[in-house]
Amino acid sequence: MDRRYAILGTGALGGFYGARLCRAGADVHFLLHGDFEHVRRHGLLIESKDGDFRLPEVQAYRDVHDMPRCEVVIVALKTTQNHLLPALLPPVVAESGVVLMMQNGLGCEEAGAAAVPGHEVLGGLCFLCSNKVGPGHIHHLDYGSVRLARYAADGAPAGISDAMLAIARDFAAAGIRVDTSDDLVLARWQKLVWNVPMSGLSVVLGGDTRSLITHPHTRALAEAIMREVVAGARAVGRAIREDFVGKMIDMTLAMPPYQASMKVDFDRGKPMEVEAIYGNPVRAAQAKGQPLPLVEMLYHQLAFLDGRAGAARVAPDGGGC
Amino acid sequence: MDRRYAILGTGALGGFYGARLCRAGADVHFLLHGDFEHVRRHGLLIESKDGDFRLPEVQAYRDVHDMPRCEVVIVALKTTQNHLLPALLPPVVAESGVVLMMQNGLGCEEAGAAAVPGHEVLGGLCFLCSNKVGPGHIHHLDYGSVRLARYAADGAPAGISDAMLAIARDFAAAGIRVDTSDDLVLARWQKLVWNVPMSGLSVVLGGDTRSLITHPHTRALAEAIMREVVAGARAVGRAIREDFVGKMIDMTLAMPPYQASMKVDFDRGKPMEVEAIYGNPVRAAQAKGQPLPLVEMLYHQLAFLDGRAGAARVAPDGGGC
Repeated sequence: MDRRYAILGTGALGGFYGARLCRAGADVHFLLHGDFEHVRRHGLLIESKDGDFRLPEVQAYRDVHDMPRCEVVIVALKTTQNHLLPALLPPVVAESGVVLMMQNGLGCEEAGAAAVPGHEVLGGLCFLCSNKVGPGHIHHLDYGSVRLARYAADGAPAGISDAMLAIARDFAAAGIRVDTSDDLVLARWQKLVWNVPMSGLSVVLGGDTRSLITHPHTRALAEAIMREVVAGARAVGRAIREDFVGKMIDMTLAMPPYQASMKVDFDRGKPMEVEAIYGNPVRAAQAKGQPLPLVEMLYHQLAFLDGRAGAARVAPDGGGC
Repeated sequence: MDRRYAILGTGALGGFYGARLCRAGADVHFLLHGDFEHVRRHGLLIESKDGDFRLPEVQAYRDVHDMPRCEVVIVALKTTQNHLLPALLPPVVAESGVVLMMQNGLGCEEAGAAAVPGHEVLGGLCFLCSNKVGPGHIHHLDYGSVRLARYAADGAPAGISDAMLAIARDFAAAGIRVDTSDDLVLARWQKLVWNVPMSGLSVVLGGDTRSLITHPHTRALAEAIMREVVAGARAVGRAIREDFVGKMIDMTLAMPPYQASMKVDFDRGKPMEVEAIYGNPVRAAQAKGQPLPLVEMLYHQLAFLDGRAGAARVAPDGGGC
């Protein structure tokens, strides 16, 4: 592992993947905000279904200008922090460095690409159930795989790059299941099929994934929303197979009861990723003449709730699922 | 006022209208459940924006078999109690008596008519903001008008009956604004235009009517749901004018911040009128080939929440708006 990694946003997601890379011998540099002092002194603690571990000393920073330039800069901030990218990314991306956006929803790669024009930008789709439970303390409940795909400004499938393969090798060496896709847009919409209903309904109805998927009314609603997301993907030219919705339902039934990260954010009074996961897909499909009425309804509901929680906001933090 | 009235369900709604009739000199008989002992001893207390008043002694009953037969039987129970009507109505309806269903949603008159075949059944649409705040203690916040319309099994406009006019005279004498409509189905759908979005969103999002109607996202959503209800009315052959939605928005903006009665029920762990206000309209429009996706989504959300609140249920109670 001779690539130097930066992790911008050392929370439930960035902290987990960064710590795994670090433990496997990678040179990893962590940007922190609220947890900086704690992590500088005590490092990171990962409680994981794959085995707990502690990194007593990590390379922790509070300011990107103190960080070395890195070949791979992983953005694991919430998308609600993406307005900071023009300030955060240029000082830390190496000359031939790539930016890996490990975020949810649509529009994240655009934000990364706009901040460092000319650099390769990748999307990292994380299938991870993890929560930050304390300063520098991450609880990894389930899953953890990553799908890498390359961003292209025109939205077309962009192939598999050398950087993608190199990062995939490093992740695999760190024990992370990883695959690659040549079609970022397809991968992002596939992920939305689960994320849109389960995250949003968790917040609006206050349930965990298990209670939502086992109640006949919310199961029917989740399925209807999933089918609508599939229709949205079709509108932007991406075919998702019919049986994918059934697979997502079955996967949810098989999961332990889980608080989606958006629900955790909401309960903590943090901003929710309403635009990335709801507003952007609604607008992308609308631009192709495809209304997504159920997703739009959830968007309006979450935007209302997000505004109400706004008063009690704290520091940015990454989060999974 | 020579007609004898029975009030089945002496809560926020039945208690209010019954007390007003009583104060105006009508012979009113109140059926109570949890509040029976209190009201038998202390009567009813109405705090009202039209002037507070107390009725120290009222004719209160715990059992319909103790009640005299009445020419007008007002059903002011929640629709979730309508399975009780075959037991409650036959003993109390006079031979030529009429049943006046002062309930929300669709399907209430059908339930009344099935319980006492051959009797005239009226719908009473109440535009009332009132809450029960204690035993026999009702707080009337705003509005209070009633629209009367006659039920016909075939759903056709059924004209203005003598009983409707007589009841309208009694209500007017009691200071209640009242009008009549020859088309119950139209009147019910018109009322749903406000009730469906505002009651349901109040519960799901936890806001009062003012906060929902002033936030741009929930205002847009409420308008979209209102337009969908208008489309549902059109599907069952009832034209509601385009500007009606705008009027409902303006009316809501002009109202004081209000907790819809469904929200009050939910907060108290009582069953919500999910089938009457959501399930029945969705099915009625669906039967005419008109999907109501937003109303159906709210239906699923409320059915999920209603099930969760079910454990903590208490006695039946009427409620306004």
